[in-house]
Amino acid sequence: MREKLTVIKVGGKIVEEEATLHKLLDDFAAIEGYKVLVHGGGRSATKLAAQLGIESQMVNGRRITDAETLKVVTMVYGGLVNKNIVAGLQARGVNALGLTGADMDVIRSVKRPVKDVDYGFVGDVKQVNAEFLGDLIHKGVVPVMAPLTHDGAGNLLNTNADTIAGETAKALAALFDVTLVFCFEKKGVLRDENDDDSVIPQITPAEFKQYVADGVIQGGMIPKLENSFEALNAGVTEVVITLASAINENSGTRIKK
Amino acid sequence: MREKLTVIKVGGKIVEEEATLHKLLDDFAAIEGYKVLVHGGGRSATKLAAQLGIESQMVNGRRITDAETLKVVTMVYGGLVNKNIVAGLQARGVNALGLTGADMDVIRSVKRPVKDVDYGFVGDVKQVNAEFLGDLIHKGVVPVMAPLTHDGAGNLLNTNADTIAGETAKALAALFDVTLVFCFEKKGVLRDENDDDSVIPQITPAEFKQYVADGVIQGGMIPKLENSFEALNAGVTEVVITLASAINENSGTRIKK
Repeated sequence: MREKLTVIKVGGKIVEEEATLHKLLDDFAAIEGYKVLVHGGGRSATKLAAQLGIESQMVNGRRITDAETLKVVTMVYGGLVNKNIVAGLQARGVNALGLTGADMDVIRSVKRPVKDVDYGFVGDVKQVNAEFLGDLIHKGVVPVMAPLTHDGAGNLLNTNADTIAGETAKALAALFDVTLVFCFEKKGVLRDENDDDSVIPQITPAEFKQYVADGVIQGGMIPKLENSFEALNAGVTEVVITLASAINENSGTRIKK
Repeated sequence: MREKLTVIKVGGKIVEEEATLHKLLDDFAAIEGYKVLVHGGGRSATKLAAQLGIESQMVNGRRITDAETLKVVTMVYGGLVNKNIVAGLQARGVNALGLTGADMDVIRSVKRPVKDVDYGFVGDVKQVNAEFLGDLIHKGVVPVMAPLTHDGAGNLLNTNADTIAGETAKALAALFDVTLVFCFEKKGVLRDENDDDSVIPQITPAEFKQYVADGVIQGGMIPKLENSFEALNAGVTEVVITLASAINENSGTRIKK
């Protein structure tokens, strides 16, 4: 039987505030077995950009990344957020290693082709080096991945953290029994968006179709769940959508094949 | 016989300008055998701090690092400068891995005790994890080290890049035949500071004493050379002070025991 690995994706809000970051690091440190942390940092990037007089332009929830914005996200994601998480995990006895996709060539991407929108220096993931990551993980190293990749030609590319988590989980599914956890602001996928306790405990593809048809699941949750099913089809064992504060609990929504 | 390893330290000026950075990366990529790059980034840190309205205070050439300044250097050294070097080396076929001291706990330091000056979040190196670095290096990974360490209690600490290079070279001397190269704005240690071509090709401890007594070597070059002799006494095979553009040439000043 393959060993278990948990890939946890946490958004910017949680890692950018001292109190929630400390709680997250405590909870993450307590997870048993092999693990990977993927983080965002968008709020800090927007704040730093504003301080530097750079306007943050978002289209479909994605940041338009010109050359100056790329510098900002490289500083915030690769430096400030990543290294503080790494130092915080080391203090908790977790042998963390901060990585962008450029480090050891772990994630290669291609600059997103310009169609309706020119996203600028934004990368679409092409390849995750599971062998290298797997080697490190087997040695007890815990990768902490920033949402930055590279194109192999010397350019860093801003890359969605959900995508990095999903692609990393899929690639590592060749080596481990992978659970992918997306931390969310809600307790899970809700049956009633106005009732925080109406969490749907488990969703199968058939149920998903029905929920969408019934209008129970809508908006941004649809691509999130589509990505979850894609990860399951690519070999990930389980996908969980839950609160960051509940990563060690058996709560949230479990997405099953 | 032990295998050769070259530790190269380059200052901020070289890595912060596109043209000199590209030349450096080409030259560094051409170095044969095992290698480590240690970089600075002070000019970019000062620039970003100024843009954010944070005054840069230097005492004895060292940056006073308050909490806000620590964020700036974490962004610039750990993010912007480090990750651009890593991506640039990957494009040149060098399997670079960006590291701060916190990553995999490679360099543990202690916050500098307050004596005459309170340097703030500045670290004095306590321990370099040579075993971990050696493992990576033997696998063909090229560490690219930012001038940041950690105290093991969750705090990043701003740490002099010359010190990081020296301590890393000393620690790795237990595993490799180490040459430590300090890149400098001049061609080497000069006999006449007004004559750029008056490079002293080799300096022994006895010659050093004589040069200091004669006033040939003075000012900031004295601690640089003292550090070099300390590295040699700790097992480093050779220390070279040279131009960054000459790291593949047999020029500069060679410091010998």
